[in-house]
Amino acid sequence: MAQGKNAFYAQSGGVTAVINASACGVIETARSNRQQIGKVYAGRNGIIGALNEDLIDTSLESKTTITALRHTPAGAFGSCRYKLKSLAESAAEYERLIEVFKAHNIGYFFYNGGGDSADTCLKISQLARTKGYPIQAIHIPKTVDNDLPITDNCPGFGSVAKYVAVSTREASFDVASMAKTSTKVFIVEVMGRHAGWIAAAGGMASDRKTEIPILILFPEIPFERKSFAAAVTRKIKRFGYCSIVVSEGARDTTGRFLADQGLKDAFGHTQLGGVAPVVAGMIRDDLGLKYHWAVADYLQRSARHIASKTDVDQAYATGRAAVEFALAGKNAVMPAIV
Amino acid sequence: MAQGKNAFYAQSGGVTAVINASACGVIETARSNRQQIGKVYAGRNGIIGALNEDLIDTSLESKTTITALRHTPAGAFGSCRYKLKSLAESAAEYERLIEVFKAHNIGYFFYNGGGDSADTCLKISQLARTKGYPIQAIHIPKTVDNDLPITDNCPGFGSVAKYVAVSTREASFDVASMAKTSTKVFIVEVMGRHAGWIAAAGGMASDRKTEIPILILFPEIPFERKSFAAAVTRKIKRFGYCSIVVSEGARDTTGRFLADQGLKDAFGHTQLGGVAPVVAGMIRDDLGLKYHWAVADYLQRSARHIASKTDVDQAYATGRAAVEFALAGKNAVMPAIV
Repeated sequence: MAQGKNAFYAQSGGVTAVINASACGVIETARSNRQQIGKVYAGRNGIIGALNEDLIDTSLESKTTITALRHTPAGAFGSCRYKLKSLAESAAEYERLIEVFKAHNIGYFFYNGGGDSADTCLKISQLARTKGYPIQAIHIPKTVDNDLPITDNCPGFGSVAKYVAVSTREASFDVASMAKTSTKVFIVEVMGRHAGWIAAAGGMASDRKTEIPILILFPEIPFERKSFAAAVTRKIKRFGYCSIVVSEGARDTTGRFLADQGLKDAFGHTQLGGVAPVVAGMIRDDLGLKYHWAVADYLQRSARHIASKTDVDQAYATGRAAVEFALAGKNAVMPAIV
Repeated sequence: MAQGKNAFYAQSGGVTAVINASACGVIETARSNRQQIGKVYAGRNGIIGALNEDLIDTSLESKTTITALRHTPAGAFGSCRYKLKSLAESAAEYERLIEVFKAHNIGYFFYNGGGDSADTCLKISQLARTKGYPIQAIHIPKTVDNDLPITDNCPGFGSVAKYVAVSTREASFDVASMAKTSTKVFIVEVMGRHAGWIAAAGGMASDRKTEIPILILFPEIPFERKSFAAAVTRKIKRFGYCSIVVSEGARDTTGRFLADQGLKDAFGHTQLGGVAPVVAGMIRDDLGLKYHWAVADYLQRSARHIASKTDVDQAYATGRAAVEFALAGKNAVMPAIV
């Protein structure tokens, strides 16, 4: 049977509970179209796997193993935080990629990540024009922060949202049970550096049938200590307790992160953590109320045990659509959820 | 139909994912024995409900509602942290309890809690002898810390153990995916002030098929910074990453809690929180490794969505056994899991 060019697939940036479902969508769809797409090679630890020629030949894996990817947490092939610079700045790296792509007859590049990955993907898509190497690059959206443009929502977000909503609801019931003599304020810190979608998901803990007093501190809304304390007081007065969902990216009115550990990651992003204890300190100092706080951190994005079915289905569908785009001859595109 | 004396049931101390299953066991078993036990009154907010004559008449609730208790998270009737002093010290409170018990014809006292609740229960059991008020008091074990004597394990613990094991496994997969270029050490802080059972549960994240590098910091084992750093280094060398499960009660070699916020609760226990960032700071300062940390706090004990079936069944069974003990004429006892 004639086979088309091979494909390269890699995961980039923070993993999610459902990123492997996208991998599953890519590989299963490619397998159904062997005349056009030969093997799917996965990069070990993301794009680094391409640069190091450290490729995982997924054609060696059984149908059952590939199907199981749909339900496998974290990043099955490893991911990375590694940003390719511009073609001009990192000429050697692009030459190296072309060398590896040539050696493995790769004509399709599927990159599964967030905004930085879309950028990398765009650069790869230009290799045909700039370096004469024919390749189609398709970006598969993934980010728990839900902050990519065009697409209605991002695979990865739905599961975190479910985790945050369920956890906030459960912990609120706990606090409500005890508030008479014990903890009156519970604070949970969630991800979302510049986008409040994850924090907003905490609001889903409450519904008309079971109203829960929840305050949400968004990264987009400057934090004002006085009005915050007043809002907590109002909730306590009415409900006897209060739950607070605070984004790691909450900032004061000067634009400074409430919790800034002074560390930066490989992309130059400030490394955050620990806004919950900062807010807890305010509850203690300003209101003298008994509090507890939690920091969900990786637990929220890795929680496959409570992944959203819709999220799993969407992650798979974007992986499948990426291959269908490639088969249709498209380049420099991203399948979106509408 | 003749009815026996009524029963009082209350929840005490921190709630669990399954304490309402015990309430369900008490109420359903009492309903099956109406000739000996009349109504079951639940104390609103624990023993405070008795002192304030704030009782919930569970006989007004439908069979369906009572059955649903088995699956209802947190403390359905409210719990409290309130410790009765000795009969000599708090004579007025015991007089008040007898007054309320008399008014509602209560002859059975079921108290669902930990060590302090067992103590309260013992005092109530002595009212017949010391105050001439006939009552049988049965303690129903409950504590996430799993630190009650006699019983093999405590209802409430199994669900926290499952939560910690699953969360540690999921987060470890996440870190493993990213360790090549990003976070190499993940720290999760768990409950268990004086008992390392919950922290130990993190070890269940690893199994022979999928070995995960996990270090556990127990409250029972004095923390030594140098040997800890060496252990982390060994794990990183072998696996490329390391997960650390640290008990909130971890202490240094002088017996001081690694994280002591200087607050005390109603029982005079030190209020803890935030040992994870302390350990994270050591990873940064001593090893210069990139880390992330989480504090599970109430999320772990309220996580009904991932409750252990065995735990739910045991919680129900101890509630049922408590009523059976009462029917057999016992006093000052606690059903244990063997």
